Amino acid sequence: MPTDFSRTRAQFDLPEGIIYLDGNSLGPLPRNVAARVQKAITEEWGQMLITGWNKAGWMDLPTRIGDRIARLIGAEAGHVVLGDTLSIKVYQALASALEMNPGKRVILSDTGNFPSDLYMAEGLVRTLGQGFELRTVAPEAVEDAIDDSIAVLMLTEVDYRTGRRHDMPALTAKAHAKGALTVWDLAHSAGATDVAVAEGGADFAVGCTYKYLNSGPGGPAFIYVAPRHAERARPALSGWLGHEAPFAFDLDYRPARGIERMRVGTPPVLQLAALDAALDVWDAVSITDLRARSLELTEAFIAGVEATCPTLTLATPRDPARRGSQVSFRHPEGYAIMQALIARGVIGDFRAPDIIRFGFTPLFIDLDDVAAAVEILAEIMATDAWDTPQFKTRAKVT
Amino acid sequence: MPTDFSRTRAQFDLPEGIIYLDGNSLGPLPRNVAARVQKAITEEWGQMLITGWNKAGWMDLPTRIGDRIARLIGAEAGHVVLGDTLSIKVYQALASALEMNPGKRVILSDTGNFPSDLYMAEGLVRTLGQGFELRTVAPEAVEDAIDDSIAVLMLTEVDYRTGRRHDMPALTAKAHAKGALTVWDLAHSAGATDVAVAEGGADFAVGCTYKYLNSGPGGPAFIYVAPRHAERARPALSGWLGHEAPFAFDLDYRPARGIERMRVGTPPVLQLAALDAALDVWDAVSITDLRARSLELTEAFIAGVEATCPTLTLATPRDPARRGSQVSFRHPEGYAIMQALIARGVIGDFRAPDIIRFGFTPLFIDLDDVAAAVEILAEIMATDAWDTPQFKTRAKVT
Repeated sequence: MPTDFSRTRAQFDLPEGIIYLDGNSLGPLPRNVAARVQKAITEEWGQMLITGWNKAGWMDLPTRIGDRIARLIGAEAGHVVLGDTLSIKVYQALASALEMNPGKRVILSDTGNFPSDLYMAEGLVRTLGQGFELRTVAPEAVEDAIDDSIAVLMLTEVDYRTGRRHDMPALTAKAHAKGALTVWDLAHSAGATDVAVAEGGADFAVGCTYKYLNSGPGGPAFIYVAPRHAERARPALSGWLGHEAPFAFDLDYRPARGIERMRVGTPPVLQLAALDAALDVWDAVSITDLRARSLELTEAFIAGVEATCPTLTLATPRDPARRGSQVSFRHPEGYAIMQALIARGVIGDFRAPDIIRFGFTPLFIDLDDVAAAVEILAEIMATDAWDTPQFKTRAKVT
Repeated sequence: MPTDFSRTRAQFDLPEGIIYLDGNSLGPLPRNVAARVQKAITEEWGQMLITGWNKAGWMDLPTRIGDRIARLIGAEAGHVVLGDTLSIKVYQALASALEMNPGKRVILSDTGNFPSDLYMAEGLVRTLGQGFELRTVAPEAVEDAIDDSIAVLMLTEVDYRTGRRHDMPALTAKAHAKGALTVWDLAHSAGATDVAVAEGGADFAVGCTYKYLNSGPGGPAFIYVAPRHAERARPALSGWLGHEAPFAFDLDYRPARGIERMRVGTPPVLQLAALDAALDVWDAVSITDLRARSLELTEAFIAGVEATCPTLTLATPRDPARRGSQVSFRHPEGYAIMQALIARGVIGDFRAPDIIRFGFTPLFIDLDDVAAAVEILAEIMATDAWDTPQFKTRAKVT
């Protein structure tokens, strides 16, 4: 049975009068989240108190929810765990991968990577010292830059600014051929594309849940370790919940079995409850259908904007296979244009210096939304409605 | 005006029929939390969507709440920030302190420290290589072990098992005299004692919020960096929200000013909302009164148990100055005794091999609770009520 996207849309609580094309930054509120979190607070924490760790299953949330996410990213069940933030998970994956590949000291990434990933790599390289190095090249130069010196290839599959999608299987294969391990950041892939980490050969993958997975502001991150590495990877951030026997309170660290070792401290139960509820909508979604629907939406938006807004330059690959689930255009006055759009109820965002971004999240965006957004954007561009001090004055941007 | 602890007690939602002496493990639910989190979900996330980062003040929660906690730990305002878990904050503090003290490579800690702190130090030492070392001694041997080789002294002020309190000012002074920096873990101090990090000279301090600060399961941690180090400390886990200009999306990391650099990834807004609400009760609490009340409670419990339970051996220091806000006793059948207590509604916990722990949290425990708990414990011990298979069979312990 094909996925019914009108049913998934009905499961979100979207404010009246807006077209929300920023689900790639912060997903909207699923209708069942408030009650689920309320239950975690009053019935679980309030009534069970400390016994909630077992009775309410809090302790197992990170792996139980990990299995729900595994399906969405094409991972083997039992090899994904939730916790911390994406930046922390990047650090763990990188440190593990470097340790598993001794003798090489270069992390290769690209300048289209989300800066936090690069910052975390910088911090790790600085901590390691001894000639460790973070090397960044342009996204299109990555393939050629994978040589025998590379210990770890760290890439974000879908570029947060342009929506350009790397070829995970091909780049991973080349990395492996050259003796490198891979760390894939799925921040803009999970819940957005037909990402398939097992099939793609990824060694490590990490991602966040507050974008296309709609877990809410500050929802926890996830990490995947390929089964072939599960008992070899060292978590670097070796906290007690990643210990083989946390409640033995031993003085020495022994990693837990498999993915459990990537746990660090006490899991954020309220955020996990929100995430768990938010994942319910996915039970009725086929990832193949999701990808088809996503491309239908982005194709329609590109065609509509290009037909009506000649001064906007497409920044997203025209080839659907090289595209995530967002569309970006460049314009020197991008900031003001986005402000004008927001004033008209079309919520996208701006990324310096000149990119306007639109996320197309099939769960709640449909072709009518696309047509309406195109119409409003075309009107703004045709009338120069963005060209007022109100829209050109820059506020603090998130 | 002295603190009115009957008023603070009224602000908690405690289940009927229990005496909750486990607030040192997971604090109970403050009455205002559910509504505050609900508001964050429906009014903020649901209605403001991405604009909540500015409009609802989400982005500033980590420092704004940091100031609220600063007062409770005797820190200077503007030098505490929330985020991540305690284990992650331990790693940041340790890595920063080691980098600020080049030429020395030993982290000194004690065997009474919470294992996760030791595990994180182990992971860091392993990552650093090059002769870095974690050295642990018995708690009473710490002072003598502080010599010129020590780079960082890392201690938990109050022992999670025995409730023994280290002398922060004295040990910090000795560490400084020997050229070492200090990292103090306040997990069992913040909200429990009159901890004073500025006066005590601490260089770094870290703590969790789900114990005596009642933020709920998995509430975020905090970190304090002394003002004199604020512009020198490097966070090691250098994420984008610790960047000088996160929304410039620069490719290179530059630490933010002061404590902001200890931020890493996206803050957990729902958990922070719970914490923010949970801190309201503290507005009417004097820390001096809290400490006096805590000692009144622990003194009464020790006296009551020692008068009625001759087979229980006090594991907590008899000297009030050396005591946190918990009392522990040893007994070879501690596990079964605690199960028998829990069956009677007295909730404490057990820590292997033989410790029964009771946390006295002045905000909601009073002398009547102490008397009732003593009476039930005495009855259990006098009648050997613990000596049944029901209580002696060990389940998974949290």
